[in-house]
Amino acid sequence: MSAEVVPIRPRGPEPSLTPMLALTAPGMNSVNSVILDRMQSQIPLIPALAGHLISGGGKRMRPMLTIAGAELCGYQGDRHHKLAAAVEFIHTATLLHDDVVDGSDLRRGKATANIVYGNPATVLVGDFLFSRAFELMVEDGSLKVLKILSRASAVIAEGEVDQLTAQRHIETSEERYLAIIGAKTAALFAAATRIAAVVAEKSEAEERALEDYGRNLGIAFQLVDDAMDYDSESGEMGKGKGDDFRDGKMTLPVILAYARGDQEERGFWQDAIAGFRTEDEDLAHAVELINRHDCVSATRERARHFAQRAIDAIACFPAGEARAAMAEAAEFAVARRY
Amino acid sequence: MSAEVVPIRPRGPEPSLTPMLALTAPGMNSVNSVILDRMQSQIPLIPALAGHLISGGGKRMRPMLTIAGAELCGYQGDRHHKLAAAVEFIHTATLLHDDVVDGSDLRRGKATANIVYGNPATVLVGDFLFSRAFELMVEDGSLKVLKILSRASAVIAEGEVDQLTAQRHIETSEERYLAIIGAKTAALFAAATRIAAVVAEKSEAEERALEDYGRNLGIAFQLVDDAMDYDSESGEMGKGKGDDFRDGKMTLPVILAYARGDQEERGFWQDAIAGFRTEDEDLAHAVELINRHDCVSATRERARHFAQRAIDAIACFPAGEARAAMAEAAEFAVARRY
Repeated sequence: MSAEVVPIRPRGPEPSLTPMLALTAPGMNSVNSVILDRMQSQIPLIPALAGHLISGGGKRMRPMLTIAGAELCGYQGDRHHKLAAAVEFIHTATLLHDDVVDGSDLRRGKATANIVYGNPATVLVGDFLFSRAFELMVEDGSLKVLKILSRASAVIAEGEVDQLTAQRHIETSEERYLAIIGAKTAALFAAATRIAAVVAEKSEAEERALEDYGRNLGIAFQLVDDAMDYDSESGEMGKGKGDDFRDGKMTLPVILAYARGDQEERGFWQDAIAGFRTEDEDLAHAVELINRHDCVSATRERARHFAQRAIDAIACFPAGEARAAMAEAAEFAVARRY
Repeated sequence: MSAEVVPIRPRGPEPSLTPMLALTAPGMNSVNSVILDRMQSQIPLIPALAGHLISGGGKRMRPMLTIAGAELCGYQGDRHHKLAAAVEFIHTATLLHDDVVDGSDLRRGKATANIVYGNPATVLVGDFLFSRAFELMVEDGSLKVLKILSRASAVIAEGEVDQLTAQRHIETSEERYLAIIGAKTAALFAAATRIAAVVAEKSEAEERALEDYGRNLGIAFQLVDDAMDYDSESGEMGKGKGDDFRDGKMTLPVILAYARGDQEERGFWQDAIAGFRTEDEDLAHAVELINRHDCVSATRERARHFAQRAIDAIACFPAGEARAAMAEAAEFAVARRY
């Protein structure tokens, strides 16, 4: 079965997350210790539920970015370990709440916490992790970091509410979609990288450069996540494929397919996004329409644009292992299939 | 109809919240401005949903305590206005999440936000207000205040999870109940009063005195709230009466009625708390059993104990309008019927 596989597209050396993982491995060991230590509570349900998601095999992309950013800045201390754990706690809290909000039942291929432990506990443990994140930041003691991450948290919540408002609204524009993912996803990427420059006491310009890297990378990541939900060539991302479609989420592949479609196709999308076409054959038809207009690759092309901006944003830092790993992570964000 | 009303019990001068309201009125005007200003967002659903609860006629007891505490400390500045608003945002966020967690449909006599706007938006706007609270604290810039309120937020979440774990467990003890309300309710009261001493730059002993006042007052408030859910002499508190009963919440009136009951009564409570007795006649029977063993007045007596501890905690502050108003507020907490 494997001998005659013909590659679907010509493959150069695929960009990989491996250099990033290697760069951040020692730091991430410390971060993971903080995470495991600080998700504890005398209320046993809290570590049980938090651990269900935290041990569930996520990439820990956001704290990894803090560690990578600190490497890029040549930072020698260890303040960023606690702060990276705080970033991951904020992210975990939003994932727990997202799963309740979306009524999800699968994440990273596992039953979600809300399915296993119920919505009430999931909401409350999210609140706990969010509070714990702020406790970690307060322990670090930088008001600058606290400002960056409290602002990011408010922006994330605004983005989530905005996404909820746009849901099932076929007329959502690409501009609005970009504003939503800029808030709900990229704000935390941007904060995660910016705080690395803050603890390293770098200049305002370097802070902004790392923030720009994070924001653009976050947008690229979300674009590709959204593309993969309709990409027949992509593996399962963990969440159930077609969830966005059935939830009537206005992601870029749909926005483009609607814009590029004819009258009949638009009628289909109107019905589907309104929630009247949720069967498997409807999803199959949606994927077909998206393929017909090359909307998955168009979405990946948009992602490539933002990834390139991310790479160029950190050109002001010295070349070396850290910068190369961060650049390749941005390329990986675009190319990945899972 | 009014000429021949016979008072149910002899009435002395009833303790009232009026002196507290008068003491804090100017400060609360400023706090309310901050609240209205800072619950805004470019996402219209956020102020709409937040305003539904915030304009819903709560007493704003917690920010009022920060203002009263600052008066007690002779504080002349205005930092406490923003911080009191932050306290109210934290409280509002927990109320929004509580209503989702409990599936409530009434609060303060109005349909809850989750009924009007749905659970997803309610969870997310709670997250927004929580983040906004931290933004306000960061603007103030006191790491000490940030530490007190981030710790309180984590403790609240732990208390809420603990309450969830105790729900429908008839063997919950008074000690565990006190630990739960100490966390879910009293921690924020304690933080709200303590931060007043912090901004007024009072001694550690005065900080602790105000914290002790707040904690004990919070316990008294929650005890009486829980008593009123079974008190046939109390007016509606706003939430649907009997909600605790139907939710199988182990509050002190039930804990005492179970402890004081005979075999048959205990059987009833076991069934009821497990969720097999949720009809109106079951609630009526529960109220009758609670009355038979004087459990509402016993709960109020427990509250009186904590209110007295609150009053004595602030004896180290000079006598005057502020201390008298705060003492009467503690008496009011015990005596109130709504």
